[in-house]
Amino acid sequence: MKIAVDAMGGDHAPEAVIKGSLLAMKWCDADLVLVGDELQIRRVLERLEYTGDIGVVNCQETIGMEEAGSVAIRKKANSSSSVAMRLLAQGEVAAVVSAGNSSAVVAAAKHFVGLVPGLRRPALIVPIPTHTGRVFLADAGAHVDAEAVNLAQSAALASCYLQVTECLDHPRVGLLNIGREPGKGTRVIQRAFTMLNRSSLHFAGNIEPQDLFSDSVDAAVCDGFTGNLVLKMVEGVSETLVRMLEEQLKAEKSEPCEKLRRSVRLFQGAHHYPDIGGAPLLGIGKTVVMAHGRSQPPAIANAIKMAHRLASGKIYERVADELETRGAMTEIRHLNGLHVLETLRSKWGRTAKEANPR
Amino acid sequence: MKIAVDAMGGDHAPEAVIKGSLLAMKWCDADLVLVGDELQIRRVLERLEYTGDIGVVNCQETIGMEEAGSVAIRKKANSSSSVAMRLLAQGEVAAVVSAGNSSAVVAAAKHFVGLVPGLRRPALIVPIPTHTGRVFLADAGAHVDAEAVNLAQSAALASCYLQVTECLDHPRVGLLNIGREPGKGTRVIQRAFTMLNRSSLHFAGNIEPQDLFSDSVDAAVCDGFTGNLVLKMVEGVSETLVRMLEEQLKAEKSEPCEKLRRSVRLFQGAHHYPDIGGAPLLGIGKTVVMAHGRSQPPAIANAIKMAHRLASGKIYERVADELETRGAMTEIRHLNGLHVLETLRSKWGRTAKEANPR
Repeated sequence: MKIAVDAMGGDHAPEAVIKGSLLAMKWCDADLVLVGDELQIRRVLERLEYTGDIGVVNCQETIGMEEAGSVAIRKKANSSSSVAMRLLAQGEVAAVVSAGNSSAVVAAAKHFVGLVPGLRRPALIVPIPTHTGRVFLADAGAHVDAEAVNLAQSAALASCYLQVTECLDHPRVGLLNIGREPGKGTRVIQRAFTMLNRSSLHFAGNIEPQDLFSDSVDAAVCDGFTGNLVLKMVEGVSETLVRMLEEQLKAEKSEPCEKLRRSVRLFQGAHHYPDIGGAPLLGIGKTVVMAHGRSQPPAIANAIKMAHRLASGKIYERVADELETRGAMTEIRHLNGLHVLETLRSKWGRTAKEANPR
Repeated sequence: MKIAVDAMGGDHAPEAVIKGSLLAMKWCDADLVLVGDELQIRRVLERLEYTGDIGVVNCQETIGMEEAGSVAIRKKANSSSSVAMRLLAQGEVAAVVSAGNSSAVVAAAKHFVGLVPGLRRPALIVPIPTHTGRVFLADAGAHVDAEAVNLAQSAALASCYLQVTECLDHPRVGLLNIGREPGKGTRVIQRAFTMLNRSSLHFAGNIEPQDLFSDSVDAAVCDGFTGNLVLKMVEGVSETLVRMLEEQLKAEKSEPCEKLRRSVRLFQGAHHYPDIGGAPLLGIGKTVVMAHGRSQPPAIANAIKMAHRLASGKIYERVADELETRGAMTEIRHLNGLHVLETLRSKWGRTAKEANPR
């Protein structure tokens, strides 16, 4: 199975990406294609004394981490992420992995590979390890803001994804909010609440951030800004607490303290996203895995391994099938229309038809 | 000094509020006025076998925790929060404390007491204890969403507040975002970045959630949804981590483990907001302190103590003076105008004046 890796994407590209790719080839039987500036790639491979036959697809343009994605993919048609996505669209590779500018990767994936029918946007799905298992966040950063219909679609995506990957019959989906009551939060969230409440999904209502850790839902839906913030908060708080404990534990050599230290590090490690690897960009027609911009080689290797697993299991295709079978996108379109109609009605009184029944 | 307490506000009102008020009277020399349904209040006081002369102002209406604030204060002119705010506006009391429906309290404070000149909205300012000290969040939940100008004004408010209360000469203010680069986050944040960057505030740029804990800023500015989410994330993550450690420590009786257990509990306690007490609703002309809806008596007592301290130190008045002296609101209005002009110019090309210089 061939996987394209965006060699120029990420803060430590191309070196970290190439090292990670070589590592991944030891971990799984994927054929990798490095997409990027061939000269630079060959130079790094030489320095690493690599003599194998990893594929390289040359392209000169690179999209910087600060550029606006939708603009960048139009201006730079031959950037590494665009070329990788084109390879995926043409069926030359089975998956793409990128740690590059996330808005550009999302834009290129949408443009070249395309979305599942009826879907408006993809969502990045990331698990947070909790005390009792894990909870998935959707969207964790593909788009900074969202409309109600985007949130509802992300909920359907997450539900189908968990059904396929975690074998859950009716995954519980909640809306991440600052209060549990239906009237809480922004208008967008309130509206998404109404839509999800009427949908056929197993909707658990609003959940507060604390609820993420109490096994009250399987997936929490939010806009990408909120999702990304939550991930980084988990990282920040656990790091702070761990540093505090480490300081206290420094002098202690006793057996229980050693045990504690190990488990504290384990907890922190589980929440350190630059080390974890990739996250599936769900809703794209074919497998796209995004890695953290600050990814080091092991994270890149993990992301590639994940892409390999997702593509082998045909997860994206099965999620798309599930969405189709359930009629999820049609349902949400219908609910959205209904909501718009109700809003108009409550604003302008009776509709023309009701006023003039004949 | 007289302080009005909204006896009907909060999930455990009126009992928890009245208990908290009686507790507060032992802690500080405030004269309290309980505002609410006199019959209910007298009944609770009787049950508590209280024989002192705490003031009671009767009012029949109560705003539920689920009602929309701006609507509720118009429909219920004699709700406990509105009556308390009127007492404050008329100078009958020096401060108001409420654990009630936050949108109603904010709306009533704005409507009856009024804002500092030039300010568009108040902001709730809450400290997060960190490894090295603490960092203040503004807004922590007064308004769920924000425009760029609101964020800029919150930054100025926070800066003046820290100058007055923490004796910092040039408090460092950052914009809470999901990345450090200026182009990150929503358009609102990007625009606030431009405005703050040009302002006379000590602007530290965008900060990521992890940076909250690394002493890189004194105050972090965000909309109320984000701020509230951050507080609840800190609470949730620390609680989870603490529960995990507690489980491991359960069997251990050794001295270092005891020490560790104490410090872990201390950390968690410092982030458990329902126990902490109140937060100043800054930007209102007179002292208003809001407590968590789930407040128990000690939290109410803490909130009253805080209101007493803020009103005695004339903190709100000094913050208003500082804003006036610095010309902060005028500056932000100017920067906002400038930004609007630039946006128009980049959208529609040269202005009419440039096209026809005569």
